[in-house]
Amino acid sequence: MPRPTEDELIARYFAPLAGAGGLSLRDDAALLTPSPGHDLVLTTDAVVAGVHYFPDDPASSIACKALGVNLSDLAAKGAEPRGFLLTLALSDEWDEPWLAEFCTGLSEAAALASCPLLGGDTVRAAGATLVGITALGEVPAGTMVRRGAAKAGDRLLVSGTIGDAALGLKLRQKPAASWGGTLSFPARTALVDRYLHPQARLALAPALRAHARAAMDVSDGLVGDLAKMMRAADLSAEVEIEAVPLSEAARAALAAGARLDTALTGGDDYEILCAADPAQVPALREAALKAGVPLTEIGTVTEGGAPPVFRAADGTARSFRSGSFSHF
Amino acid sequence: MPRPTEDELIARYFAPLAGAGGLSLRDDAALLTPSPGHDLVLTTDAVVAGVHYFPDDPASSIACKALGVNLSDLAAKGAEPRGFLLTLALSDEWDEPWLAEFCTGLSEAAALASCPLLGGDTVRAAGATLVGITALGEVPAGTMVRRGAAKAGDRLLVSGTIGDAALGLKLRQKPAASWGGTLSFPARTALVDRYLHPQARLALAPALRAHARAAMDVSDGLVGDLAKMMRAADLSAEVEIEAVPLSEAARAALAAGARLDTALTGGDDYEILCAADPAQVPALREAALKAGVPLTEIGTVTEGGAPPVFRAADGTARSFRSGSFSHF
Repeated sequence: MPRPTEDELIARYFAPLAGAGGLSLRDDAALLTPSPGHDLVLTTDAVVAGVHYFPDDPASSIACKALGVNLSDLAAKGAEPRGFLLTLALSDEWDEPWLAEFCTGLSEAAALASCPLLGGDTVRAAGATLVGITALGEVPAGTMVRRGAAKAGDRLLVSGTIGDAALGLKLRQKPAASWGGTLSFPARTALVDRYLHPQARLALAPALRAHARAAMDVSDGLVGDLAKMMRAADLSAEVEIEAVPLSEAARAALAAGARLDTALTGGDDYEILCAADPAQVPALREAALKAGVPLTEIGTVTEGGAPPVFRAADGTARSFRSGSFSHF
Repeated sequence: MPRPTEDELIARYFAPLAGAGGLSLRDDAALLTPSPGHDLVLTTDAVVAGVHYFPDDPASSIACKALGVNLSDLAAKGAEPRGFLLTLALSDEWDEPWLAEFCTGLSEAAALASCPLLGGDTVRAAGATLVGITALGEVPAGTMVRRGAAKAGDRLLVSGTIGDAALGLKLRQKPAASWGGTLSFPARTALVDRYLHPQARLALAPALRAHARAAMDVSDGLVGDLAKMMRAADLSAEVEIEAVPLSEAARAALAAGARLDTALTGGDDYEILCAADPAQVPALREAALKAGVPLTEIGTVTEGGAPPVFRAADGTARSFRSGSFSHF
């Protein structure tokens, strides 16, 4: 069966995903009318088969991840999504069922985030499949939450739970190995699901804009990303390891022998790390709770540019071999 | 020598290219304040080594092409560039001299177009290098020039000259073969340069907004792209082949044995094809001339949805085996 042309692909699979500004993907460009009095927030992230995901991951999961990692950046900046552009570089092995499932996953993830497809480009990859997304969001003018704006004395908070995705990745790599074998099915599923299907914390955006001083998303591990956030402010931090929120499934994995370091330094959490004036913390937590996103205090921003200190329950400082996960 | 980390790459090579909205590429996202009363025009196009360019093309040329193909879409829509985001997926063979030359080329092309880098992502390609760019432009609200808005009776015009890049590609593929061998050095250089270094017709944008009814850029060949433009309007067209503007170098190539079909159906021109009310043609041409871009009338939009007819000097209709160039 001959493969469809790019125009046929667009009409069949991508045009149904297009928002109004996408002009049915039948023009050279998309059109977006910015909301008056707002700034645009722009981010771009690509995922590559065999680098950022397993080539045999479900196509819908790959789509969910590709969009999710971009939406997570928007959420961390306090932005509401307006739309996205897609670059899909397909390896020679693609077939239409794969593409159909990819588009179903993309459509669902986009609808959930009210973030329509605006445009795209489909090319031959000459190697592994790559999914590149540029996402556009908006904030009321001047309210984008910066990464480097923390101040000494600010409290540090993190959304949801940390480490699930990194533990899920370990299970995805070696399902039967060591501690994985003793975990319950629901716990295993929960961890792998966090790895496969990052859920951007978009609901938290208004609370961050209103009450946080600085924020970023935790994509490369809490330890590394906190260090990045503090470097950007030329500050340091103290974190109580006991306070870092862990899911029930993650606790079960640790009890079964998984390493805490995996949870604290592994990537793909896509939670939000933020710094807030202590006086703003109650309001921030209440707004987050109303938005359905738990937010946990894990430490304090401190003076000096030294790497953040992670303290165990007995007060001793822990160091980590691998500070930050890098796909590069 | 150990390769630099992604953060080091950003600081060393990409941060110097960043515009104000890029926040020195040290935040999760870029920030852009839209001009009041304007619409955003968004486009994304990727080029892949071995598919859209030769892996041994100069790195600065690859950068110039990757940005140029996107700027060309903005120009065709009548938009002024505001900035771009870059996805660079590097094959395992990259080295720092390559990247340094790539960034020099990108920096020059971006400066020429007043289109700063706003953000990006650098990843491992697991295959051929891919350069993906999302470009953002602006038009006064409601003035984006559409692809499908032509009307029967409109005159068709094209900027610059057609076919140089396609002939240049032939020379790039087989420098010594057939007609190429008899061409003068300046003619060869001119054709190959058009292939390697597309120059987006951004200077034409205001004239298009003011006087054109429809426009698109000629990226996949005049024959195929005109057919696309007419399909989008459910119309047809008549083109006088003799009227299609050819450069001196292209004429020399044709005289030496190159095929006219190559010039008319080959890709990579990045000229602008537009349709204008006959009453607007003098003003359009004058505005284009003032902008330094020659614009040539090549035919007329006609009723009916049949493929456009290309007429030779003797009035007979020509058909083309390959209507449109496709990289996919």
